[in-house]
Amino acid sequence: MSPTRRQASLSKLGEFELIQSLPRQYSSPKFRPTIGIGDDAAVFPLSPTQHMIVSTDLLIEHIHFTRHTATFYDIGYKAAAANLSDIAAMGATPTALFVAIALPASLTKMDWQEFYRGLAVSCKPHNVQLLGGDTSASPSALFIAITITGQVEPGHILTRKGAKIGDLIYVSGTLGDAAAGLAYFKNSPPSKASPRTKPLQYLAQRHLQPTPRIALGQLLASQPFASAAMDLSDGLSGDIRHLCRQSHVGALIHSHHIPMSKPMQAYAKRVSTAPLDWSLHGGEDYELLFTVPPQWQPELEKLAKTRRMPITQIGVIQPQRFGIRIEHQDRTRHPLPQRSYEHFSTL
Amino acid sequence: MSPTRRQASLSKLGEFELIQSLPRQYSSPKFRPTIGIGDDAAVFPLSPTQHMIVSTDLLIEHIHFTRHTATFYDIGYKAAAANLSDIAAMGATPTALFVAIALPASLTKMDWQEFYRGLAVSCKPHNVQLLGGDTSASPSALFIAITITGQVEPGHILTRKGAKIGDLIYVSGTLGDAAAGLAYFKNSPPSKASPRTKPLQYLAQRHLQPTPRIALGQLLASQPFASAAMDLSDGLSGDIRHLCRQSHVGALIHSHHIPMSKPMQAYAKRVSTAPLDWSLHGGEDYELLFTVPPQWQPELEKLAKTRRMPITQIGVIQPQRFGIRIEHQDRTRHPLPQRSYEHFSTL
Repeated sequence: MSPTRRQASLSKLGEFELIQSLPRQYSSPKFRPTIGIGDDAAVFPLSPTQHMIVSTDLLIEHIHFTRHTATFYDIGYKAAAANLSDIAAMGATPTALFVAIALPASLTKMDWQEFYRGLAVSCKPHNVQLLGGDTSASPSALFIAITITGQVEPGHILTRKGAKIGDLIYVSGTLGDAAAGLAYFKNSPPSKASPRTKPLQYLAQRHLQPTPRIALGQLLASQPFASAAMDLSDGLSGDIRHLCRQSHVGALIHSHHIPMSKPMQAYAKRVSTAPLDWSLHGGEDYELLFTVPPQWQPELEKLAKTRRMPITQIGVIQPQRFGIRIEHQDRTRHPLPQRSYEHFSTL
Repeated sequence: MSPTRRQASLSKLGEFELIQSLPRQYSSPKFRPTIGIGDDAAVFPLSPTQHMIVSTDLLIEHIHFTRHTATFYDIGYKAAAANLSDIAAMGATPTALFVAIALPASLTKMDWQEFYRGLAVSCKPHNVQLLGGDTSASPSALFIAITITGQVEPGHILTRKGAKIGDLIYVSGTLGDAAAGLAYFKNSPPSKASPRTKPLQYLAQRHLQPTPRIALGQLLASQPFASAAMDLSDGLSGDIRHLCRQSHVGALIHSHHIPMSKPMQAYAKRVSTAPLDWSLHGGEDYELLFTVPPQWQPELEKLAKTRRMPITQIGVIQPQRFGIRIEHQDRTRHPLPQRSYEHFSTL
């Protein structure tokens, strides 16, 4: 690598490249994660019956959120939900959340308590213990680092790696709602940002207060229902690529099978946007994307229905050389385009 | 609480007060830490034979370090050592280190790799797995959050809580070396900062590359040798206060028994500083402070000597009403003054 290349500003390098560049010679052989960087969380063997899951996320003011367009409650709620979703994607049970926070002088105690209340409300249904980790002054922006831990039995871990040719591709819930909610906030003047109608309230909530699919993740992991799984944080078009890369496979997605909510479709029509754009490229739905070997399909669909966990088959895993393609209702096919999603653009 | 009080800038509130203000009604009863906020790390029961330790630390540019006076290698080394020291203070075995880092545009890939190399070299002797957690751009300062995990058997955990009246107060190593190293860097023009003599190199290293006392922590926890323990990060005068508060006891410290190194005493003389000031109030030595029931003294001292782990008795635990006092060689006694220590003042 040339000196110029090495000195390249890190802001131009992707996270994946950064992590790949970590000097492997320094890593220790004693306590290796069974699953490391590149999945939703790292997994460590603790005992023959227990594995530990750990995931860390950063939330930085002006990068992931601004105080002008989100309340501290919202920021806290979504931060916890995003971390819980990483645990859901592994089929694990979340146990504790650690919050390290650097506070600029402009922040009030009430702001901080509102942030914490958002975190706590998001954690409460999942019985997750919320713990402060470290608190410091910040010379500039508000910085938040959240670490979540979870537990899972060995042999019951969902990863991005196991998808096989012929496996059925599923998603939970409906896609594109969070993107529609984001568009709503972007389109509304701040003074009128609070939505008044139920469909718009639904979209706003899907953007501000996503639901981590913990119970579904655990169901998928309880039997080998899912051969691979991850959560949809960057958007289907980007995330299916991550799953296929880790599993060394391709994918065919049927656009007309992608589940979309009525409020999202109605709002898309109102603002002259193609709903498929939001459902393919909109991030932060925090639904699960997973692959199911065909023989498990009937039992999984039956169980999911009984437990009222909406899941929808949207495609089939293909050989790697097939690439990642989308088929429309008129049977036309083309490579699935990818668009980058900017997290927390209004939050 | 009055609105004015609630709106008080957080920068004026202490971390302890912040953490005390966390709304307890939101915490979940299911997965409670056996030891939580207020000790060196949180401890969670995992199984009848395993407890998990988790601790999170923040390192923020312009608050904890500046790039002008420390190399990225130094910053990484010390960051890992400080986290490992938290695990040592619990008598546990460190297992993994997670690094979340927000990178300003001015940082180069080489800077980041040097930071990571420092972390890795610090972790290597302890067989700790080093993992990237999350990476993001930063709009301003360099922001680092480190989470360390460890394991310990139930019943073999050191806490700050168990000191009893009559227990002997011990410290490991020598105190005040890191403060002397810090003073050296403060007194030297940047162009001549690299120390040339062995005593000064020793002090510089004690400041830049502290040694976490993992093996000693494990020895203290292996039998009930220590009734309470913590690591010395803020300085003896502040840290003995934390231990006494958690244990509801007082303490008498014998100033002439506090172990001090020859290089520290020589440098103190050279710059007309009282060495006792550094050993009492200098932070970041990362030695262990612990209390030992008298009946365990002979066996512990014998084992520590055999294993070449220098430990020194410096006082005796007293009733809480006694307060925290220091006795000098001439038998005069007075309340132990406390001075706040500014972390990483040059680093």
